[in-house]
Amino acid sequence: MTVVGIIAEYNPFHNGHLYQLEQVREQFPTATIVVAMSGNFLERGEPACLDKWTRTRQALTAGVDVVVELPLAFCVQPADRFALGAVKILKEMGVEQLFFGAEHAEYDFNLMAEKTLNIHGDFSKYNESYAAAYQRAVYTQLGYSVDTPNDLLGLAYARANVRLNARFRLVPLQRIIAGHHDLILQKKQNIASASAIRKQLQARKIKDVKTYVPEITYKAIMKQPLISWNDFWPLLRYQIETSSLQKIRSLYGVGEGLEYRVKQQLEGLPEDATFDDWLKAVKSKRYTYTRLARLAVAILVQVTSGEVEEVEKNPYLRLLGFSFRGQCHLNKVKKSSCYPLITKITKDNKKSTLQLDYRAGNVYALATGVKQDLRHIPLRIH
Amino acid sequence: MTVVGIIAEYNPFHNGHLYQLEQVREQFPTATIVVAMSGNFLERGEPACLDKWTRTRQALTAGVDVVVELPLAFCVQPADRFALGAVKILKEMGVEQLFFGAEHAEYDFNLMAEKTLNIHGDFSKYNESYAAAYQRAVYTQLGYSVDTPNDLLGLAYARANVRLNARFRLVPLQRIIAGHHDLILQKKQNIASASAIRKQLQARKIKDVKTYVPEITYKAIMKQPLISWNDFWPLLRYQIETSSLQKIRSLYGVGEGLEYRVKQQLEGLPEDATFDDWLKAVKSKRYTYTRLARLAVAILVQVTSGEVEEVEKNPYLRLLGFSFRGQCHLNKVKKSSCYPLITKITKDNKKSTLQLDYRAGNVYALATGVKQDLRHIPLRIH
Repeated sequence: MTVVGIIAEYNPFHNGHLYQLEQVREQFPTATIVVAMSGNFLERGEPACLDKWTRTRQALTAGVDVVVELPLAFCVQPADRFALGAVKILKEMGVEQLFFGAEHAEYDFNLMAEKTLNIHGDFSKYNESYAAAYQRAVYTQLGYSVDTPNDLLGLAYARANVRLNARFRLVPLQRIIAGHHDLILQKKQNIASASAIRKQLQARKIKDVKTYVPEITYKAIMKQPLISWNDFWPLLRYQIETSSLQKIRSLYGVGEGLEYRVKQQLEGLPEDATFDDWLKAVKSKRYTYTRLARLAVAILVQVTSGEVEEVEKNPYLRLLGFSFRGQCHLNKVKKSSCYPLITKITKDNKKSTLQLDYRAGNVYALATGVKQDLRHIPLRIH
Repeated sequence: MTVVGIIAEYNPFHNGHLYQLEQVREQFPTATIVVAMSGNFLERGEPACLDKWTRTRQALTAGVDVVVELPLAFCVQPADRFALGAVKILKEMGVEQLFFGAEHAEYDFNLMAEKTLNIHGDFSKYNESYAAAYQRAVYTQLGYSVDTPNDLLGLAYARANVRLNARFRLVPLQRIIAGHHDLILQKKQNIASASAIRKQLQARKIKDVKTYVPEITYKAIMKQPLISWNDFWPLLRYQIETSSLQKIRSLYGVGEGLEYRVKQQLEGLPEDATFDDWLKAVKSKRYTYTRLARLAVAILVQVTSGEVEEVEKNPYLRLLGFSFRGQCHLNKVKKSSCYPLITKITKDNKKSTLQLDYRAGNVYALATGVKQDLRHIPLRIH
């Protein structure tokens, strides 16, 4: 009985995710599938369109055995840090094999990881974005570009696997749709990318996505308001208006004078400006939209550098849901892991370990109207 | 040519205010009437129902010659501090006589002021509200109660007059309506209190207030959204959710452990709670609703103690509007006053002198959708 790990956002959970799980089950019918899932704020610096409990239920229904939440400190991060955090958690969860989608499943990700292991995080001296500098460094080491989002993430997982000595067997799965951002369908007519689905949802073409998502996702989409940056923009704007430069500077990911840009560019915008208007105004050659969107999450949730460091020093396993098979596996994890396994918010942990995630949940709840952590226990599906 | 001062909020400007101006003109047809008016946040800890420019226009149209803005640091304050700030400003504006409404215009406010001059601000040791303790101290000194809102304010003006050696001649005008909070009409059928008018407006009985306000106010009410705490509650809630105890503690008017109450009581509220629900939850014997509402403004606008002290040390005259007669008077004030006369926001003053008022305006603009300070110059009416 092997333990398979998947790193996911499920934003929202769609047929491509279902297909991935089917592939796992086909290869390992009795595997325990553990998913490390982003919570309510995601890798690319945006709120999840559906809350973490809704997405957990979807994943469990589709056959996942355990869902643990990636702490916000790990998941609202560039690919390499995101991967390090996720692999760290899956390692503690006893994962043996890591499945992930890739545009080029034929790549030898282990070899690529070994070759690029000397690439380290600080590209701040270049007059280009972090992502561009990173890709250039990869190109220099490998002799060819890795420039599609899933391949890049796969490489980041592989690098984290080596760096953390997690010893995962890597299983890249060929992505069966054209690209991350297209609605072009290949082979299977009922698969589209998450971003394509979100695009349709934003355009309120809800019925159009029915083909591409499982029934449970479609029901949630029909019933719940879909959350986006638009819901948080008034709060972010207010936060920037009332924050001193000094305060913005103390937040995670600010630096290099970005605090001035953040405030100044807002001041020039009209009162009816949107989140995207602000992002465009702050954008420069140096910063990608994604970097700035992550910064926006840090401002919105008031993430300090100290808090991120604290989670890095003292990571934890936050359980969101499990199946019967998952429960058996969790009993083992409880004994083997040196990280605390957290099943609910308590008076103590909301002021210490979970402080940041708890606050993020409270902010998210301002848009959904549904509390995210208080009075929640992990979902169980048998 | 005398200079008459009035301290006002004009929330909104109504026939009672008009009547007060008529009384002044009747007694002093050629007087220059200078009004020190609260800006967008008011004495009782609430946003103004119409913005400061709209209210300034109403006042000028009704015959006021100069409107200067009471800095937020002076006006979102208990009566005695509010009065001190306002009298300080009117003194610099060359005011000679102070007109104010009173439930008992027959009182000798000068004498009352002299008798109660030894009453000073700190009542924090009593297990009762500041206001109650203050009234009790007044009762002890005078031998009778002063417990109606306008008499209390009048006494506060009189005390400030003595303390600041402003030498204003005090002119109390008998209020011609029953009480501050009633819609009961006496003598003149077209006068109602501001709070009664706001109550009707909140109940969306807009047409019902037509009788009680000048045409210009009625037009503004019909055209502009009426602002209340409801508009800022999502922002306040968000601010409390994301602020650390330490940060709340650094704000003006917090202390005595109030920061814990502010956060804890919010946590217990449902997601659909209103501003009033929160206020009720935080309320205790020790704190009046008004005190807590002022605290809410401090949290919303992020008013620090240091900022309030700064304004107290370096006051200024912020001009909102003037008539031709007002302009002549302003030329004198410019020469005689040692306070800066500010006519617009500049790169410099928005980071120094006007920092707090500018921020308050930006927060207010999040509800109105209309910038409050940038690109505004004083209104002129001839």
